[in-house]
Amino acid sequence: MTGTLYCVGVGPGDPELMTLKAARIIAQAPAYAFFAKRGRPGHARTTAAAHLRPGAAALRFEYPFTTERAVDDPDYIDAMTAFYEASADAIAAHLQTGTDVALLCEGDPFFYGSAMYLFDRITPRHATVIVPGITAMSGCWASAATPMTHGDDVLTVLPGTLDQASLTARLAGTDAAVIMKVGRNMPKICAALALAGRLESAVYVERGTMAEQRVTKLCERPDAPAPYFSLVLVPGRRRAR
Amino acid sequence: MTGTLYCVGVGPGDPELMTLKAARIIAQAPAYAFFAKRGRPGHARTTAAAHLRPGAAALRFEYPFTTERAVDDPDYIDAMTAFYEASADAIAAHLQTGTDVALLCEGDPFFYGSAMYLFDRITPRHATVIVPGITAMSGCWASAATPMTHGDDVLTVLPGTLDQASLTARLAGTDAAVIMKVGRNMPKICAALALAGRLESAVYVERGTMAEQRVTKLCERPDAPAPYFSLVLVPGRRRAR
Repeated sequence: MTGTLYCVGVGPGDPELMTLKAARIIAQAPAYAFFAKRGRPGHARTTAAAHLRPGAAALRFEYPFTTERAVDDPDYIDAMTAFYEASADAIAAHLQTGTDVALLCEGDPFFYGSAMYLFDRITPRHATVIVPGITAMSGCWASAATPMTHGDDVLTVLPGTLDQASLTARLAGTDAAVIMKVGRNMPKICAALALAGRLESAVYVERGTMAEQRVTKLCERPDAPAPYFSLVLVPGRRRAR
Repeated sequence: MTGTLYCVGVGPGDPELMTLKAARIIAQAPAYAFFAKRGRPGHARTTAAAHLRPGAAALRFEYPFTTERAVDDPDYIDAMTAFYEASADAIAAHLQTGTDVALLCEGDPFFYGSAMYLFDRITPRHATVIVPGITAMSGCWASAATPMTHGDDVLTVLPGTLDQASLTARLAGTDAAVIMKVGRNMPKICAALALAGRLESAVYVERGTMAEQRVTKLCERPDAPAPYFSLVLVPGRRRAR
């Protein structure tokens, strides 16, 4: 009998926004795995810390890059492929001895998550269970008290890495929008929102649901790069009803 | 001192997919409110049942319609406006006596939720707290073991009530898509997916995360209307990495 891989969403940052199921699985797992930036404790592990089983084996996967890269940079793709291969192998080694592994995932595992690259490699050979998590965007619109989508609204989730013309066209053609991966793309995002006539209603949320959370109208935000844990919300139509 | 309205997301159906925060707030609330269809126990209340505080006051809000209506039908709008007004007044009456109220919400309160219409009416006069929940779509793509969005993918969330031409254009122009409000719109949705070249990859999920869950490739599903708790997933691009 081989073990099961649990891809466990731990939510947007507030440890209380983990699900009961995530807490139970993490407390039972004899081994857990997590991604982290070099020299950092790992956000998913920090979020889940109170629930980890004492003595559980820890698999730490440290990203090979310390700064953001273009997703189509061949060096980046090669290095990330090797990184995901090695990480999946390390998990599989535990599964092969019959040990269950809980892979701790920021937000939701299948929504822009690194976990998918391990899932794709492991699921053909081992049992897998996905535990959904509260996405960063849900955490942010709750924290910002910003109702997002009503009735027949279309919601578009946009990576801020898209070029300005694509961002503008998509923002102009949707009711509600969430812009992820803000970081250094902020000037381009603001320009696209202005061109699409959506800058006035845009809300900026930094570190949503965490202790250092900051919420402001985007157009009132000082001009500065945004941290990793930030996104922009464009609420949908408010109905008269 | 007046009470606080907590809009509490209880998630997609599996009671274990409630957050720790939702469970705590529901267990503490001296009064709770929920929406229900005529003659039904109410899905959000059923999901939260194990956590309700014994003796808590219950506010049941019964939808005035038993079948789906067009969102722009004037009779529908008038009746729903009156319904939301009365529901908000019933909650406010408790808040005014200093009683906190937990409004139980299917999925996430600010993602296509009826709770927003009560929040909009109550928030100017009373303290409100939003507790995000696992959305139906997150629950469904986890249950279907379908990774949705990678890297730079654009995700579009579409109500199945849109006309076929709009659905087709939006499906052709996005990487990943979720189609909500499937119900009687299924033939139109299938036609739009086929025209957009996305039918082959579409996954149908019925009652995701619930005991009676069903997952199938949409093109292999027998031709029949879909129940309320169903949606269609179109996964984004799989990367070589």
